[in-house]
Amino acid sequence: MPLLIKNGEIITTSARYTADIYCENEAITRIDRNIDAPPGTEIIDATGKYVFPGFIDPHVHIYLPFMGTFSKDTYETGSKAALVGGTTTLIEMCCPSRKEEALAGFETWMSQAVGKSACDFTFHMGVTKFDDMAEAQLREIVKRGISSFKIFLAYKGAFGIDDTELYRTLKLAKELGVVVTAHCENETLVAERSKELLAAGKTDPGQHHESRPPVVEAEGVHHLMTFAELTGASTYIVHLSCQEALNEAIAARQRGVDVKVETLIQYLVLDKSYAERPNFEGAKYVMSPPLRDVRNQSVLWNGLRSGLVNTVATDHAPFDFKGQKPMGKDDFTKIPNGIPSLEERINLLYTYGVKTGKIDIHTLVDVASTQVAKTFDLFPRKGAIQPGSDADLVIFDPNYRGTISANSQMMNVDYSAFEGWKLEGRPSAVTVRGQVAVKNGKFVGTIGRGKFLERKPSHF
Amino acid sequence: MPLLIKNGEIITTSARYTADIYCENEAITRIDRNIDAPPGTEIIDATGKYVFPGFIDPHVHIYLPFMGTFSKDTYETGSKAALVGGTTTLIEMCCPSRKEEALAGFETWMSQAVGKSACDFTFHMGVTKFDDMAEAQLREIVKRGISSFKIFLAYKGAFGIDDTELYRTLKLAKELGVVVTAHCENETLVAERSKELLAAGKTDPGQHHESRPPVVEAEGVHHLMTFAELTGASTYIVHLSCQEALNEAIAARQRGVDVKVETLIQYLVLDKSYAERPNFEGAKYVMSPPLRDVRNQSVLWNGLRSGLVNTVATDHAPFDFKGQKPMGKDDFTKIPNGIPSLEERINLLYTYGVKTGKIDIHTLVDVASTQVAKTFDLFPRKGAIQPGSDADLVIFDPNYRGTISANSQMMNVDYSAFEGWKLEGRPSAVTVRGQVAVKNGKFVGTIGRGKFLERKPSHF
Amino acid sequence: MPLLIKNGEIITTSARYTADIYCENEAITRIDRNIDAPPGTEIIDATGKYVFPGFIDPHVHIYLPFMGTFSKDTYETGSKAALVGGTTTLIEMCCPSRKEEALAGFETWMSQAVGKSACDFTFHMGVTKFDDMAEAQLREIVKRGISSFKIFLAYKGAFGIDDTELYRTLKLAKELGVVVTAHCENETLVAERSKELLAAGKTDPGQHHESRPPVVEAEGVHHLMTFAELTGASTYIVHLSCQEALNEAIAARQRGVDVKVETLIQYLVLDKSYAERPNFEGAKYVMSPPLRDVRNQSVLWNGLRSGLVNTVATDHAPFDFKGQKPMGKDDFTKIPNGIPSLEERINLLYTYGVKTGKIDIHTLVDVASTQVAKTFDLFPRKGAIQPGSDADLVIFDPNYRGTISANSQMMNVDYSAFEGWKLEGRPSAVTVRGQVAVKNGKFVGTIGRGKFLERKPSHF
Amino acid sequence: MPLLIKNGEIITTSARYTADIYCENEAITRIDRNIDAPPGTEIIDATGKYVFPGFIDPHVHIYLPFMGTFSKDTYETGSKAALVGGTTTLIEMCCPSRKEEALAGFETWMSQAVGKSACDFTFHMGVTKFDDMAEAQLREIVKRGISSFKIFLAYKGAFGIDDTELYRTLKLAKELGVVVTAHCENETLVAERSKELLAAGKTDPGQHHESRPPVVEAEGVHHLMTFAELTGASTYIVHLSCQEALNEAIAARQRGVDVKVETLIQYLVLDKSYAERPNFEGAKYVMSPPLRDVRNQSVLWNGLRSGLVNTVATDHAPFDFKGQKPMGKDDFTKIPNGIPSLEERINLLYTYGVKTGKIDIHTLVDVASTQVAKTFDLFPRKGAIQPGSDADLVIFDPNYRGTISANSQMMNVDYSAFEGWKLEGRPSAVTVRGQVAVKNGKFVGTIGRGKFLERKPSHF
Repeated sequence: MPLLIKNGEIITTSARYTADIYCENEAITRIDRNIDAPPGTEIIDATGKYVFPGFIDPHVHIYLPFMGTFSKDTYETGSKAALVGGTTTLIEMCCPSRKEEALAGFETWMSQAVGKSACDFTFHMGVTKFDDMAEAQLREIVKRGISSFKIFLAYKGAFGIDDTELYRTLKLAKELGVVVTAHCENETLVAERSKELLAAGKTDPGQHHESRPPVVEAEGVHHLMTFAELTGASTYIVHLSCQEALNEAIAARQRGVDVKVETLIQYLVLDKSYAERPNFEGAKYVMSPPLRDVRNQSVLWNGLRSGLVNTVATDHAPFDFKGQKPMGKDDFTKIPNGIPSLEERINLLYTYGVKTGKIDIHTLVDVASTQVAKTFDLFPRKGAIQPGSDADLVIFDPNYRGTISANSQMMNVDYSAFEGWKLEGRPSAVTVRGQVAVKNGKFVGTIGRGKFLERKPSHF
Repeated sequence: MPLLIKNGEIITTSARYTADIYCENEAITRIDRNIDAPPGTEIIDATGKYVFPGFIDPHVHIYLPFMGTFSKDTYETGSKAALVGGTTTLIEMCCPSRKEEALAGFETWMSQAVGKSACDFTFHMGVTKFDDMAEAQLREIVKRGISSFKIFLAYKGAFGIDDTELYRTLKLAKELGVVVTAHCENETLVAERSKELLAAGKTDPGQHHESRPPVVEAEGVHHLMTFAELTGASTYIVHLSCQEALNEAIAARQRGVDVKVETLIQYLVLDKSYAERPNFEGAKYVMSPPLRDVRNQSVLWNGLRSGLVNTVATDHAPFDFKGQKPMGKDDFTKIPNGIPSLEERINLLYTYGVKTGKIDIHTLVDVASTQVAKTFDLFPRKGAIQPGSDADLVIFDPNYRGTISANSQMMNVDYSAFEGWKLEGRPSAVTVRGQVAVKNGKFVGTIGRGKFLERKPSHF
Repeated sequence: MPLLIKNGEIITTSARYTADIYCENEAITRIDRNIDAPPGTEIIDATGKYVFPGFIDPHVHIYLPFMGTFSKDTYETGSKAALVGGTTTLIEMCCPSRKEEALAGFETWMSQAVGKSACDFTFHMGVTKFDDMAEAQLREIVKRGISSFKIFLAYKGAFGIDDTELYRTLKLAKELGVVVTAHCENETLVAERSKELLAAGKTDPGQHHESRPPVVEAEGVHHLMTFAELTGASTYIVHLSCQEALNEAIAARQRGVDVKVETLIQYLVLDKSYAERPNFEGAKYVMSPPLRDVRNQSVLWNGLRSGLVNTVATDHAPFDFKGQKPMGKDDFTKIPNGIPSLEERINLLYTYGVKTGKIDIHTLVDVASTQVAKTFDLFPRKGAIQPGSDADLVIFDPNYRGTISANSQMMNVDYSAFEGWKLEGRPSAVTVRGQVAVKNGKFVGTIGRGKFLERKPSHF
Repeated sequence: MPLLIKNGEIITTSARYTADIYCENEAITRIDRNIDAPPGTEIIDATGKYVFPGFIDPHVHIYLPFMGTFSKDTYETGSKAALVGGTTTLIEMCCPSRKEEALAGFETWMSQAVGKSACDFTFHMGVTKFDDMAEAQLREIVKRGISSFKIFLAYKGAFGIDDTELYRTLKLAKELGVVVTAHCENETLVAERSKELLAAGKTDPGQHHESRPPVVEAEGVHHLMTFAELTGASTYIVHLSCQEALNEAIAARQRGVDVKVETLIQYLVLDKSYAERPNFEGAKYVMSPPLRDVRNQSVLWNGLRSGLVNTVATDHAPFDFKGQKPMGKDDFTKIPNGIPSLEERINLLYTYGVKTGKIDIHTLVDVASTQVAKTFDLFPRKGAIQPGSDADLVIFDPNYRGTISANSQMMNVDYSAFEGWKLEGRPSAVTVRGQVAVKNGKFVGTIGRGKFLERKPSHF
């Protein structure tokens, strides 16, 4: 069934105008004023609303086995939450353990998503080991449509790779044109400091950030940047949280290193005092890198505004406050990491970024959609509003007023880190390849319709 | 007469697709596939060509009295050259001397352009003096549609302002939402070093860059950044030429200073060895800041690619090699400054930037059109391809092969700094508000049709 | 009369041992164990005490006409205070106004000191104007024994010089081998911000530091460093107060600029909260650059310890709290600037630096004596304990316990900025060229015995 | 037998004067003018000569098993070479392999030195493994008089430690007050790049520096600095060779990290072009970090002059050009590393540093003796000329003119890296604890008289 979106104010990175958008066969086919709908066309009246390209979350976890438990969302619940929040494409971290083979891991992750997702998806292929077999399998995985790797400088033993593996992964990425996304924290420092804190009886959630201060992250970034400089690989720093780390990335960029920087919505609006809340409440706010001193918020907003920071993601990883976070009741290192935000990323960026004047609305589209699509070889299929692009569209109502609450959220988790926060705008309708998946803010899409997006590497 | 551009590959900062563009009443009214042209429509077949938004040169001089002579172009010759080169909007520096009143200066510059230009234009209003009268007149000039100022840290006595004037200009700009563009070189250092060089008998063009080394420019940038930090004004550094100066700007940006950086096409493709050519040939390459050591080229290309550098301009200021440059035959300080490039900016960016892989084609559009339009309050009237925008379009032929020569250029000057350089692409057709101004690479536009563009300040 | 100091623990920058010191004819003539005193020798038992080379304060004001009043000390009171505090040599700022001729100014300052000082002295010659006559007179003044200049980037109109004067002063200094000491604050920023604050009704002493935040000082340092880099002159930044300014100096040092950094004892132990004390009490703590945020203290101590900061001075300038500071009762810009500290520099460095482990005792000697002597061409006449050096010695009692109070101080001013502070050590005896000037902490010297120290430039 | 050195010009870090020095029972007992020698006193006439405190080389290898061979010097030949060159104390790297126990290694190294050295010596204890046993043994070794550790970020598997060991070593050092000296190069980068070069057929000595460019060293320094910042340990970077690495150290120092920087005489006077000499000649100049681009020389001299760089060592490690260097004939990674310089350090510093005006003579004493002594807990026993200090004295003849040649050197190696270089000064006599060990430039000392110097940690 064709779809016609009438009279919306179309806003992209580099355009802003009012027009109708006509979609057929999953794609945008026409953008014009006064398009007449043929009979049988579904019509959405977008008068007074913005129309954005579907947002892309470049950093989520859906299938995430962790310490004998799992993060709560499945592709079914997760894709619903994403769509309600305006995110139409997920890039999930595919993270086999060091013991698992890459290809087997890839297939496991695929099997969790295919046929279960309401929105489109792809993966950053985790390189958690690098040997001859891994290399051969990574080449195969790239052939199957993956154009980005993920590496961990942290979590040694579990996901983390050593320096030799790091060097070789970057060389392979350079050869294949694949961009390497990286979690940059020095593992050993975290481990040693955690041990010291625990030994001193400091076990509560508020100690988590003490165990991994900004220099731990800055060290990770500096390390990656050196390896990137010498191999020539394209890099992407995930979840950058603080000024110290940003400074290292920008210094490298000034030396010519190809590096993009992702921050998270959490770092933009929360700070470490949340993790220090009493009665284990802080556990809701435990993630890695940790929430930082509040002064970093303006550093990151300024970074988005001025282009120093390139994208905004969520690192979505939901664990129940009642059933799962308490694993770390007496030991902060055992608290499952994650602040669920997949559903709220765009709404928070809009209400706390655009409405407050911290960034303009074109920047919102750029950092949450278009730059992501370009960086990860999805553009212009995704991240664009133009004839031929997938009809992933967000009809956003700037007049909506509401309040965030765990009670009403789609994410399958028993709390919201933003409980009671006001919103001044939200997606009223969202489409996935021409099908309406959200109407009046409610999910009306089709589980299983989401497709795996094959990507072709371009970072040579 | 309506205009229809058929089958071009439309390329903007954030879109790339093939469609037709229909223009009526000076604006783009439709973008769609397979638009039918009503009778009387002029049709351009853009098959196999790119369609860009009209390019904007944010830094040109047309009317430029200098040491008893004038730069060679008028709006007639200059706008022709601009259009042939794909530039459809000029932002000229309006630079009254310190003795002149601001408003009188503004009117002088307006009178040189109105009715004489084939393309649209506006001005950065030079603040070459700041006192109560100047302030009042600047407020009036902003009301008349100017939203950017230009200041000189160099050329004290002529155009340059002192620190008190600088502070007050920035404060006024902040109040009015005006962006302040600035020439950043420390005047005194240039003057003293020039004197030393001349006293030592070093008079040839190759001494020019010795008189103003990178630290002189870096000092200017650092100085402006301090004043911007304390006043909160939005700033834009014109013609940044070297790593040392860029580092100062980026350091300020990391502290939260609102600063954009412009470089020039000359700095991207030329270097100081050109200015050292014997037999006074170097005089063709004398401008300020001077051409730099060749290592800076990659710094600046990298800057464009990674967003550290925001725009590319020309600082166009043509003086004849035979009749005017020789004023400085025995004294490099008397060589009229300028390397004519208005006509070649886009072609050089494409051939030596995009084709060589230094930047991608979206970046070309962004740095030479869209970001300029956004920064200087012309967006989305200019800098965008969307319904409602002015129909300023560049149909660019990537299959063109040619050679730059003074013999064939439209700029009214007797040499080309790029004589004999190969081009791999050029605009085949260019439109100004729906009228074809260039066809088959030849000017066919209308002198005097260019309009003054009123702008509304937004940098609060 | 010969003098013998018995059994002291001699501590210099690079030595620490117990020995006797025998002085004759104003100089140290022997250092040995068990020196026998010829009859008539004055003997000081230094058992259990330290013996330091006489300390040098490289930055004091004694004769200081200011806004129709004068700073309170004369050479008589000032040199007494210096000696009681262990300082045996003063380097005063000779600061004629721009209207005065350099030579006349020099003679005025000389006339205030010669025959009136109990300790030795010399001057940094203020270059408050630079033209042909000034240049000629400066050359003459250097011939008369001055080897350092002082310039102000602040106080334009009064003492401050413009950029051309700055450049020429540095060039002359380079030619003559003179080191240039500089007050680095951007004058205009201070003036404009002060005006804004006053206009907003912010008139109290606590606004003083708001009128000249760290970036104002950092700007001054960066500016000087650029000029030093291009002229090759040796520079010395006086009263550096904060991290931002230090960073600029160190960056320049890394580029090869010859720059030494002086901080003040005030910045090491006080912070801006003192200047914010209510009931005009803050006025006691008004000086320029202002006291800073407390975090800068550790930056400066670390700087001393690691050699990033080279010397510690006082910028001594006493004005009465009752009679003079109130000139700025309703306007902080009119508060006479200065925090009297000449008498307490060494005691505070020892108690709050050495005793707390922030610096070691050799560093104390180095930064308050030997490095000063070396930098300002007084070494090894001053700043050393060796045969042939002037017998300026400080016998320091580390077992003394006392309290600072205006009641007991020698400085001619009606308050102490350190009232009630504990001391853990003080000079028990001090000698000036072999004559005991302080005994049991009391002044017993001879007014008028202090000599002008002729110096020979060495910074070529 | 007492010793009297007559009429020398004594030069220390902070003194310069002419006097006699009388030594008895191994120590300096008197410094005075006109000391009368009791009968039986050995008298050295030092008229017209300088007298320096004995120089200390903080970084030498004597016993160095390497790839089945050994570096050529023994304590017998090495201590002779040291003494002839003015070095009276050696701090050797005690480097057991990871397979060896620390205490056994310490005893092995001790056994090579005790009874065999003509000069005094101590060790940096190599921490090449860190586990419970190693920790216990290190504590024991510190009790036996060692107050500095040595770690390698390079040479993983052989000497290098992993991050956990690094953290724990630094923590232990902090607890014990021990300073940690560190070889800072990232091992993996060297290994991977070496493999690439060899695979590409690049096997000659000139490839060595390509395998470990400046960023490899800068990365090592940054890494160590992060760990030092978090543990609070005192650190000392050995053989720093380039600006990039220095910048990282200075940045850390500005953040408050306690770090001292050592460079080598080789980096001050040689550059990488030496290692590129044809016919395997370059092998004479292979060491790690490698000789660098010549621009780094001025960076390092400037660093010494301004205090950014603290000491000058040699990393002495002699391998014969004929018999040993050829192990790497076809593979630069197999060339035994080292440029023999123990004998020439002071002469080169004097001739190419002091005589050329790059550093002053006090700085020479400081960086090659006094600061070393202070840093490594030898002061004031060593590094000082004062009553009570060991009578280690260098009588240096500034009028000597000579030429360096392998033919005449004491070092047991078949080439000199400085063959044919002119010298303008050398030690004419050298004493070790009051005994003359060098006379007229010739060794006349006593093998086996050298003592192990027990040191007490002070870096808490």
